[in-house]
Amino acid sequence: MLGQMQHHPLRIIDILTFSAEAFHSQGITSVMEDGRRTRHTYPELLARTGRLANALDRLNLQQGDRIATLAWNTHRHFELYYAVSGTGRICHTINPRLSAEQLVFIFNHAEDRAVFVDPSLVPLVAELRTRLSTLDHVVVMGGRADLPSDARDLLCYEDLLSAAPSDYDWPDLPEESAAALCYTSGTTGAPKGALYSQRATVLHALMVVAGHPQSLRNGRAVLPVVPMFHVNAWGLPFTAPLAGMDIVMPGRSLDGASLYTLIEQEHVFTAWGVPTVWAGLLQEIRSRGGPPGELGDLVIGGAAAPRSLIAAYEEMGINVNQAWGMTEMTPVGSRGLLPPEVRSASLDTRVDAQIGAGRRLFGVDFKLVDENGNRVAHDGQTPGELYVRGNTIISGYYNDPEATARAMDKEGWFGTGDVATIDATGRLIVRDRAKDLVKSGGEWISSIDLENTAVGHPGVRACAVIAVPHPKWDERPVLVIVPEGDARVTLDEMHRHLSDRFARWQLPDDILFVDALPMTATGKVSKLTLRQTFADFVLPDLREE
Amino acid sequence: MLGQMQHHPLRIIDILTFSAEAFHSQGITSVMEDGRRTRHTYPELLARTGRLANALDRLNLQQGDRIATLAWNTHRHFELYYAVSGTGRICHTINPRLSAEQLVFIFNHAEDRAVFVDPSLVPLVAELRTRLSTLDHVVVMGGRADLPSDARDLLCYEDLLSAAPSDYDWPDLPEESAAALCYTSGTTGAPKGALYSQRATVLHALMVVAGHPQSLRNGRAVLPVVPMFHVNAWGLPFTAPLAGMDIVMPGRSLDGASLYTLIEQEHVFTAWGVPTVWAGLLQEIRSRGGPPGELGDLVIGGAAAPRSLIAAYEEMGINVNQAWGMTEMTPVGSRGLLPPEVRSASLDTRVDAQIGAGRRLFGVDFKLVDENGNRVAHDGQTPGELYVRGNTIISGYYNDPEATARAMDKEGWFGTGDVATIDATGRLIVRDRAKDLVKSGGEWISSIDLENTAVGHPGVRACAVIAVPHPKWDERPVLVIVPEGDARVTLDEMHRHLSDRFARWQLPDDILFVDALPMTATGKVSKLTLRQTFADFVLPDLREE
Repeated sequence: MLGQMQHHPLRIIDILTFSAEAFHSQGITSVMEDGRRTRHTYPELLARTGRLANALDRLNLQQGDRIATLAWNTHRHFELYYAVSGTGRICHTINPRLSAEQLVFIFNHAEDRAVFVDPSLVPLVAELRTRLSTLDHVVVMGGRADLPSDARDLLCYEDLLSAAPSDYDWPDLPEESAAALCYTSGTTGAPKGALYSQRATVLHALMVVAGHPQSLRNGRAVLPVVPMFHVNAWGLPFTAPLAGMDIVMPGRSLDGASLYTLIEQEHVFTAWGVPTVWAGLLQEIRSRGGPPGELGDLVIGGAAAPRSLIAAYEEMGINVNQAWGMTEMTPVGSRGLLPPEVRSASLDTRVDAQIGAGRRLFGVDFKLVDENGNRVAHDGQTPGELYVRGNTIISGYYNDPEATARAMDKEGWFGTGDVATIDATGRLIVRDRAKDLVKSGGEWISSIDLENTAVGHPGVRACAVIAVPHPKWDERPVLVIVPEGDARVTLDEMHRHLSDRFARWQLPDDILFVDALPMTATGKVSKLTLRQTFADFVLPDLREE
Repeated sequence: MLGQMQHHPLRIIDILTFSAEAFHSQGITSVMEDGRRTRHTYPELLARTGRLANALDRLNLQQGDRIATLAWNTHRHFELYYAVSGTGRICHTINPRLSAEQLVFIFNHAEDRAVFVDPSLVPLVAELRTRLSTLDHVVVMGGRADLPSDARDLLCYEDLLSAAPSDYDWPDLPEESAAALCYTSGTTGAPKGALYSQRATVLHALMVVAGHPQSLRNGRAVLPVVPMFHVNAWGLPFTAPLAGMDIVMPGRSLDGASLYTLIEQEHVFTAWGVPTVWAGLLQEIRSRGGPPGELGDLVIGGAAAPRSLIAAYEEMGINVNQAWGMTEMTPVGSRGLLPPEVRSASLDTRVDAQIGAGRRLFGVDFKLVDENGNRVAHDGQTPGELYVRGNTIISGYYNDPEATARAMDKEGWFGTGDVATIDATGRLIVRDRAKDLVKSGGEWISSIDLENTAVGHPGVRACAVIAVPHPKWDERPVLVIVPEGDARVTLDEMHRHLSDRFARWQLPDDILFVDALPMTATGKVSKLTLRQTFADFVLPDLREE
């Protein structure tokens, strides 16, 4: 028997219309590219989003069309999130730090019809433009003064908004409609797209607000250091307005000193980002003698935070909450909400309880499986590959049936590639990776991609990439080479060889030569043995003079 | 274009499985009928709920069957919420305070196949049983000792649980499946059923947790004084575990002294109920010289709280949050979350901001319409009848197409019967009622029902019921009679005449005689004129000696 309740599609735009009413005096402060700060309330942002929606219609962009962004964290990027999805189009955020090769692949694979680009990234688009086969419009996210003088076919964001009315009749789409697209360079081969629905995004926002009570506090300000091109800034552009928070968009300056000043001046209560950012802030706090203003909470994701970092912040009375997730998960899967019985415990006990990835959000299910796909116990001891299930998790990759087939198991669960333990109380600790990746500064680098290109160099007979721990970047890639004859390819030479396909930050930090690669019983290179062999290796930038 | 996300039905049972893991040390303390308190953690409650689910299967109850409860607030009632809905059956909570006539109507209209009843209410079921045409099972919610000695065909709750295993494979039902049923004696004629779905209940839980950050605090304890037979205790059995809170179930003693002691001893942080309860507690606080223990928050619903009550609690540092909703809304529609800019204002300013029904929850839409159904401005001045829309609002009444047709407008909005204003910031203030009802102690009394029965007395030519304000009960009904000839029916005589169909608390407090009833232009009795005529009338229990 069915209930007798109304059915309305879950819609992303309803978050903004809600906040514009319920939290009418709150909004976004953005640090712009010139360093100025601008402030917009949610009612103002809703009106501007309505103008943008009308402008998109006038550009003759259709429902379902992919609209790319190449932009830092600003209120304009926020408006695009809502206007593009609210009109039934798909907001495709792109990481501007990828290589030209990767950018071209992603643009063309998504068949983006327009790109909205920050002024500083206009030259990047100009360089790629002839290779972007589906692109009709380039819109510069600024005023007339932000456009280059010679750019006749570029559109001006603020001109588009000024010319359009602010009222918009947001369509009722099926809640399963696509709303946003984000590529991950996660595992192997080409980047793969996660195509988020309206339903997944709204449920994720509700689940995360319900799951982060100590961080997403009504009436306080949140600083998303995590970029908006990176899995929707972990959902903050949706969760913060829903929770009734101010957002402080930091722009491009993410060093410790800039963040310290911003946090202090804008009364930031909680800040979200990868461990390297908080290590930088910690140095600044130490040099200034104390933490900034009202900072009371950090959410750390993208990589595991070292115990020392957690302890340093907790000692200052700043709550540290580790979260875990993936692009394929919208992205939050778990968070380190302290059990009530631990909250008034000693510093050591609290820090111990904050090691690991916390516990799952309501709405996300976990299972651990062995290499045969059989479930293993959640006993806190037995490691297994972590599979996840839920409304906020992909059912496959955008236009990529092969990658989809590799990622999903027979029961429809998504394989994360992380090897983890879960205890009887649901506590998740990620122990290792099943997939072969290097995680640097919160972003993935594919070992296999690097290896496939490196082995194309005439001086390389065989090679393997291993991840070496790094205090700032979490991990950095190092290339292990079996040379062809007497050849000893230099690091510079290898960088030149790789730089067509890879961004600078994806290139290996060093080369090590070996006579042969260690093999597993099944004939694969044993990365485990290699990592053990080079356990004492020190990365070039960490060597003492 | 559709997103590529997994689709899993939203399920109520997932709230409990989640809490049993994430909040494994929290749970429910229940005051039982004998005054003893029992404590169960969420993992224990999940195990017991699994046993109950298996027991339901063994009783040969089918998916979609309605299972009634006649019970106070206890952990067993909580287990029924989850086991009945989790197995695809429908949990039909019934108000034991209704008249025998109303109870029989509701049981038979819902076609309940089983009833779970608290020990103290067994005699009530015994009295009605021969008239309950679909009832197969009566289960007494207690142990063997709680069963009457002569009751051969009564089942024992704890015996059923002991005999069943705790593991249960909860089915994946469509999320629109019916999960719970609650009748309202709201407007006119017979009671009408709201049939909640799994989807509505889960979304409501997420929306309310996201919308009540100052009340539903992780790690704290909540006291639902609002009964579980009354719109799912405003959703607390779902929201509290989702938010990671302890629940203190108060049993039957809801006087100020009992509540004071319970709040103090069980470390209650937030308590939810109707204004009369908080007036009673306030007296107790004054007599004891200060508020109990950790009480920091009250949520008041069911009727508007007087300013003096709000001010008295705010003065003690206890946050007062007025909420508004209806049985037909799962039930929360709005809540009085203070805007951040008011939180550090003076007491007077804060209390002013807390008058009214607050602002809508995310996911609930409001419109005000005039008597022709046209929208009126949300300007804080223009009153209109309040219509509501959303996934947590009924699309119609259970098996009642006529009442459904009266309640829903052409656009599919539900008419609340409240006349209200809404200002530009979304602030809702309920001004009057379009429907003809008396609200006493948080429950509706239908004027039309009383009138239709009263006019059947030979001494009554015509009559009308009006609501008269009462400081404790909010309103009480008074019967205005145009007598037949010289007859002057006494109040006692009228109570005898009405008592077959009405509960004691629904009977009018007094009778007033008039020569004729005032009429409106359209030929209806003008209740407005009657209320004005008797504006100085004082209810019997308020008259000074």
